[in-house]
Amino acid sequence: MTEKLELGFNVPAKVGQELNEICTPALIVDLDVFERNVATMKCYAEDNNIRLRAHAKTHKSADISAYLIKSGGCCGICCQKLSEAEGLIRAGVEDVLLTNIVVDPIKIERLVALTKQARIIVCVDDLENAKNLAVAAERANTVLECLVEIEVGHMVCGIPIGADMIELAKFVDESPSLKFEGIQAYQGMAQHTYEFSDRQALLDIAIDETRKAVELLASEGLTCNTIGGGGTGTHPFETKSGIYNELQCGSYIFMDVDYLRVKMDDGSYLSDYKPSLFVYSTVVSNAKPGRAICDAGLKAQSVDSGLPEIFGMANVEYVKCIDEHGVLLDPEDKLKLNDRISLIPGHCDPTCNLHEWFVGVRNGVVESLWPITSRGKFF
Amino acid sequence: MTEKLELGFNVPAKVGQELNEICTPALIVDLDVFERNVATMKCYAEDNNIRLRAHAKTHKSADISAYLIKSGGCCGICCQKLSEAEGLIRAGVEDVLLTNIVVDPIKIERLVALTKQARIIVCVDDLENAKNLAVAAERANTVLECLVEIEVGHMVCGIPIGADMIELAKFVDESPSLKFEGIQAYQGMAQHTYEFSDRQALLDIAIDETRKAVELLASEGLTCNTIGGGGTGTHPFETKSGIYNELQCGSYIFMDVDYLRVKMDDGSYLSDYKPSLFVYSTVVSNAKPGRAICDAGLKAQSVDSGLPEIFGMANVEYVKCIDEHGVLLDPEDKLKLNDRISLIPGHCDPTCNLHEWFVGVRNGVVESLWPITSRGKFF
Repeated sequence: MTEKLELGFNVPAKVGQELNEICTPALIVDLDVFERNVATMKCYAEDNNIRLRAHAKTHKSADISAYLIKSGGCCGICCQKLSEAEGLIRAGVEDVLLTNIVVDPIKIERLVALTKQARIIVCVDDLENAKNLAVAAERANTVLECLVEIEVGHMVCGIPIGADMIELAKFVDESPSLKFEGIQAYQGMAQHTYEFSDRQALLDIAIDETRKAVELLASEGLTCNTIGGGGTGTHPFETKSGIYNELQCGSYIFMDVDYLRVKMDDGSYLSDYKPSLFVYSTVVSNAKPGRAICDAGLKAQSVDSGLPEIFGMANVEYVKCIDEHGVLLDPEDKLKLNDRISLIPGHCDPTCNLHEWFVGVRNGVVESLWPITSRGKFF
Repeated sequence: MTEKLELGFNVPAKVGQELNEICTPALIVDLDVFERNVATMKCYAEDNNIRLRAHAKTHKSADISAYLIKSGGCCGICCQKLSEAEGLIRAGVEDVLLTNIVVDPIKIERLVALTKQARIIVCVDDLENAKNLAVAAERANTVLECLVEIEVGHMVCGIPIGADMIELAKFVDESPSLKFEGIQAYQGMAQHTYEFSDRQALLDIAIDETRKAVELLASEGLTCNTIGGGGTGTHPFETKSGIYNELQCGSYIFMDVDYLRVKMDDGSYLSDYKPSLFVYSTVVSNAKPGRAICDAGLKAQSVDSGLPEIFGMANVEYVKCIDEHGVLLDPEDKLKLNDRISLIPGHCDPTCNLHEWFVGVRNGVVESLWPITSRGKFF
């Protein structure tokens, strides 16, 4: 009884279980494919002599971070929120770039406290904010490493290239409690731009802006140790630019339906990387001919980038996602009650944020359970 | 330090704090509005002499369930997943309708085990499934209450009205380990159908089908103690039908942007109910004129039903939701770094599923912290 309660309440699977014994909906990782994706990017970075700092906003897991550092060629990891960083550092990750801005005074205190536990680098795009960081770091008797986040077309955080940027970088460089580490130049909008030529056009601008920023800073005597950016959808551009020296790809480890739409220059997909992440789901109703209902809806996956696709099953389509159910068109009535299906999520990052465990599967057997350490750590 | 760590890692606020001291993004509840919404529905049900069994799939919170039963006129609560039911019952809720189908053998065992801890009712739409429930309940030496879920136009779970439905209901009625409690007749698709006349057309069909089902069952000597359905968007139809005797509204306690689009027969909105739930967020970047960036993105709210709206602030618009940020158009550059904004979520249910705490606020001060007991309990 205890075992069943435990399975039901917290953990969807046990090591050694067969795939169809997993409690659904669950997030499963095909370990063979996952490891191949990781190895492929590691080789890519090595072959191209560029540093790789994989982004943990995708998986939010300390286990995966450790694997990427040990076996995936990563110099450290990125994350996107302070509480993610805290969760990952608490779980043993030792080199973290927070690719974001921290402005709340209480959070700034927490941020500078992290410098005593691990290497932590943060982004800044505002002089007042940099002053606040400097005061807090000085008070904590520490030095906080900073990247100046620049605007390269993403239009989210980032200061435009120009006099204000230089003033900000100089302030960071001259503050005894801050260290100027370089620039953050991420073109997020381009990652999911499907057509190669459209993506190229966006990256041409981003790379130009980045080059301009580096040159301007150099003319002021400021050297960038890190010129970071690039995601799964654009990293070949940043790599070939000759400007960037650190890639921040995240989704390549898992992929998702939306990334499968991103075309490369020969018209093919991002074909080196295959889906390794699935929402595993059970058919709970087939009371009407031609359709079946599964147990994975909006609370088990994010549909912000479109619906999931059913993996490895022809002529069955996931056509509607409601709160706790998925509606499947099944014209041949293939699916029976309690059958299992594997869904490729529309968008991997926010889907991972809904689950507490990755269930690692190899040859149809559960091999590992990785807690999603920083799930819900969005503050 | 401990206090700050605690705030950062798990709980976004403390009782007694001012609103602007809350760690963002956080899910806040305007307690005055929430209580007014709850009281309004209570009066509606009493005035119309219909039972109210509010749906916990909206909030997933044992505290709110208890409040709705004690002060909201509710005879019990609904929930949508077995693990939600387990979480709520473990936290003290005593009367739970699981408005869903349970097919996995391990889950069926857990379901029948709940009958020893609280009143639990489950839905069935398949004879084989009913047989499995009967065997498990018999083995556990218990009786499991069942509603036969019928198809009324929602096209999710539910057996069409006819001979198979009667066979299923009779099997349930005649099984010593099952109890036939009535029917589940929910038209979910109609809840967010914005135009009154379109909603009416869907409900005309649903009510006709439900009446047919009740009459067919009666002709076989089967009485329905419960004829349940209705949500925030349609409950006046079910109430006036004279057929339904139990409403299952959930969202009325919070409302959301999508429900604010649902028009009533006089062309007005669902005007008795006001937004009480907000994603509270901080401006983290305003490095570019005319726009600001806040810290509430896809991981703090669900956009399946559209973007959030900014509450109580003219000429600022939330125009883009990315993983960890929201992009705000702010042509007058009103927003400064570290300013707070309140967002009405596009869709309340899956937004609540992302957070771990409701921060109850009255007169600008944190009054209560309710854990979202069944967050992530989607299996």
